[in-house]
Amino acid sequence: MLLRFLFFVIFFVGCNAHSKDVIDQIIVDEAKLLINRGLNSNIGFEIVESLTTEVGPRLAGTEAEKRARDWGEKKFKELEFSNIRSEPFSVDHWERRHEHVQIISPFPQNLVVTTLGGSVSTPTGGLSGDIVSFPTLQALKDAPLSGLEGKVVFVDEYMTRTQGGSGYGIAVKKRSGAANEAGKRGAIAALIRSVGTDHHRFAHTGQMTYEKDIKKVPVAALSAPDADQLQRALERGDVKVKLSLHVEAKGKVESGNVIAEIPGLTDEIVLIGAHLDSWDLGTGAIDDGAGIGITVGAAKLIMDLNKVPKRTIRVVMFGSEEVGLVGARAYAEKYKSSLHKHIVGAESDFGAGRIWKFDTNFAPEKLYLGDAIHKILEPLGIGRGDNNASGGPDIGPIRELGVPAVTLKQNGWDYFDYHHTADDTLDKIDPSDMAQNVAAYAAFTWIVANLDDDFRSTE
Amino acid sequence: MLLRFLFFVIFFVGCNAHSKDVIDQIIVDEAKLLINRGLNSNIGFEIVESLTTEVGPRLAGTEAEKRARDWGEKKFKELEFSNIRSEPFSVDHWERRHEHVQIISPFPQNLVVTTLGGSVSTPTGGLSGDIVSFPTLQALKDAPLSGLEGKVVFVDEYMTRTQGGSGYGIAVKKRSGAANEAGKRGAIAALIRSVGTDHHRFAHTGQMTYEKDIKKVPVAALSAPDADQLQRALERGDVKVKLSLHVEAKGKVESGNVIAEIPGLTDEIVLIGAHLDSWDLGTGAIDDGAGIGITVGAAKLIMDLNKVPKRTIRVVMFGSEEVGLVGARAYAEKYKSSLHKHIVGAESDFGAGRIWKFDTNFAPEKLYLGDAIHKILEPLGIGRGDNNASGGPDIGPIRELGVPAVTLKQNGWDYFDYHHTADDTLDKIDPSDMAQNVAAYAAFTWIVANLDDDFRSTE
Repeated sequence: MLLRFLFFVIFFVGCNAHSKDVIDQIIVDEAKLLINRGLNSNIGFEIVESLTTEVGPRLAGTEAEKRARDWGEKKFKELEFSNIRSEPFSVDHWERRHEHVQIISPFPQNLVVTTLGGSVSTPTGGLSGDIVSFPTLQALKDAPLSGLEGKVVFVDEYMTRTQGGSGYGIAVKKRSGAANEAGKRGAIAALIRSVGTDHHRFAHTGQMTYEKDIKKVPVAALSAPDADQLQRALERGDVKVKLSLHVEAKGKVESGNVIAEIPGLTDEIVLIGAHLDSWDLGTGAIDDGAGIGITVGAAKLIMDLNKVPKRTIRVVMFGSEEVGLVGARAYAEKYKSSLHKHIVGAESDFGAGRIWKFDTNFAPEKLYLGDAIHKILEPLGIGRGDNNASGGPDIGPIRELGVPAVTLKQNGWDYFDYHHTADDTLDKIDPSDMAQNVAAYAAFTWIVANLDDDFRSTE
Repeated sequence: MLLRFLFFVIFFVGCNAHSKDVIDQIIVDEAKLLINRGLNSNIGFEIVESLTTEVGPRLAGTEAEKRARDWGEKKFKELEFSNIRSEPFSVDHWERRHEHVQIISPFPQNLVVTTLGGSVSTPTGGLSGDIVSFPTLQALKDAPLSGLEGKVVFVDEYMTRTQGGSGYGIAVKKRSGAANEAGKRGAIAALIRSVGTDHHRFAHTGQMTYEKDIKKVPVAALSAPDADQLQRALERGDVKVKLSLHVEAKGKVESGNVIAEIPGLTDEIVLIGAHLDSWDLGTGAIDDGAGIGITVGAAKLIMDLNKVPKRTIRVVMFGSEEVGLVGARAYAEKYKSSLHKHIVGAESDFGAGRIWKFDTNFAPEKLYLGDAIHKILEPLGIGRGDNNASGGPDIGPIRELGVPAVTLKQNGWDYFDYHHTADDTLDKIDPSDMAQNVAAYAAFTWIVANLDDDFRSTE
């Protein structure tokens, strides 16, 4: 930590004076102080440690997610935030109960799998069938609409590891696509190679959605070593598997967003946040306890300045993100009449790796503001990114309604090693990387909360 | 592979001439040829690929271990070995059926565990109790013989990562010790931090044994992240857990050793081998499919020389190693009258890492032979080790009866990351490391099978 701090000090001396022309020197100095404090604070890690220990897994719509909301409200109170509230909405219940897949011939053995979120169960007693393997989802789509009757489809598509996570968007299509395309072709079930980049015996879960008016077939993901094993067995001839996947779906249940604020002098809103729910297999440390720690920790550092910002800083712990951005949509609906007062939205939801890039989604004539903010963040090892920021999954619904967005893009090189697996636990987080994230979020948030201008078009 | 071969060629030129004085030049040249062929052969990897794919997990005494013996006999036939046979013995049956451990208060969540081999079940419906934590097995032993009534003991002892695996001998004591010491003190169950060095969510199984005439309490191992989680929960106060561990023990069942030979000109025996059984969670790739691949592959390369060795080379696939060297003891018993004809024994059972050291267990006056053999192996990056070779677990019983032993010691730096976990799968093996092992075993075995002298004391 000390070395990192010295690194920062040395480089900060060289910080481009350009920021001063755009951002008030007092604000720049306060942002520098926040960076300094963030790099030397453990608060982000402490928050994710608390959440993952005291709640653990917290699947959308479950009693565990309710305990997470209680934890969130309590944590906000403990940290002395204002306007703390939980805002309920409803979500479709889904929980896994039992999952067991085995090769029954020619080489009897169990395979490590996990049922994908939203999947239906297998019939009582399970189902069995011969595997028909496709190297990609596209290959399955290219297959005739009949000919897979009674078969279990296996989509053995790989995911590419990248720093920015671009491999995910491509690979994740099979998560819904495999069951949908298998069902259309008369197959009885689908298996996929996990959407992930690791080589451990963890299956990666994640949400899938059935298309309307098609035969719903159950679908599960194999861990990478198990996908390899199935592939090797198939190289030797026909392979028959048995699937027993049991899930429960109770209909609508309660979920909610937990919100707190640092009140500003105006009712303009700077929104930062992360999602509170996690998948059920791990303790949701990198997805997305880290984001909760980073954004709540950053806001706490700002509160500790004991200065009232011009704009209100709102911290949102979104509920039910994993099952389809349900909390984000509820937020957009609830606040639709005040979205024009939302200056910017930024969610931290890509693990706990260091931030390496500052992306904006601003009106072209306001890009100079993004450049000026970036100059303050640059000594943290953060480059200026593009102007296509998504802002994070839960910012999507408000961004689509015109709210400018920022992504403080994290290094995701190993994010998909752990994503949606049982192995997403606290030990996968490096506290010093968390501190860099907290420093960046604190500085960014403070600057934006005190700027005179906004990021929308002036036209 | 090519680079490695060139490396070998360059260094081989510098090979000490000393070997020639002790080992016939023809044998030295043949050993060089075997090293060359071994480094350029994939046979070891192909054998472990076959075993782990076509059999998979193969727990001692199960139908799967029987299939492994069938595989072994078939593989020996396919490779054209002689005197192929399966030699049966009986073993105590034990299989896990169901295991589920959860924190029930204050932070309800599941923990990743695995029941230790030999453990009894929990009562029907499971059991629950407060955790009493001990940092080491010694701390538990130091506790009074009462005071743990109704409690669940947690032994949170760490294992040290070392190249040679010396951390295992210390850490593994808790595998039996935790339940024994807990039972003596009135506790109802025991949990241990897994005997392992990884930080993934895999619990490490392994055999435990109850002392005579004590209360048998069930025992399971937590993955490292789950042990951390329990530790963090305990830092916050009392923790109650519920354990449901169900195992089946049917009594005596059949197991066996699978043996094949390359007949020599004499009835003297050079024994190399590995164990065929594995734990049930993984596919037994590094433990000990790798050893099967290395030793069978090495013997096959020797057969391909098309030369009859002076001594008979015997390859043994030991059964039921994991549950207490049952196959090794059966072998020692069966061959006790011919052990004086066993020139040396060497088992490969420490994963698939590169061999870095050549240990012997020879009479002092025969150490010069070990040194001479070592000189042939040295270009493979193998140093001369000590004279305390165990020969490998399955060599123990015959070594104790006077058979000289050799250990071709592998790099075990990451061995205990995977050892006895579900993650012990083929992808953890580097084929080029396997090739180095095959080369070393082939050369060693060929030399010893053709030496004039032996390694016993001349007194």
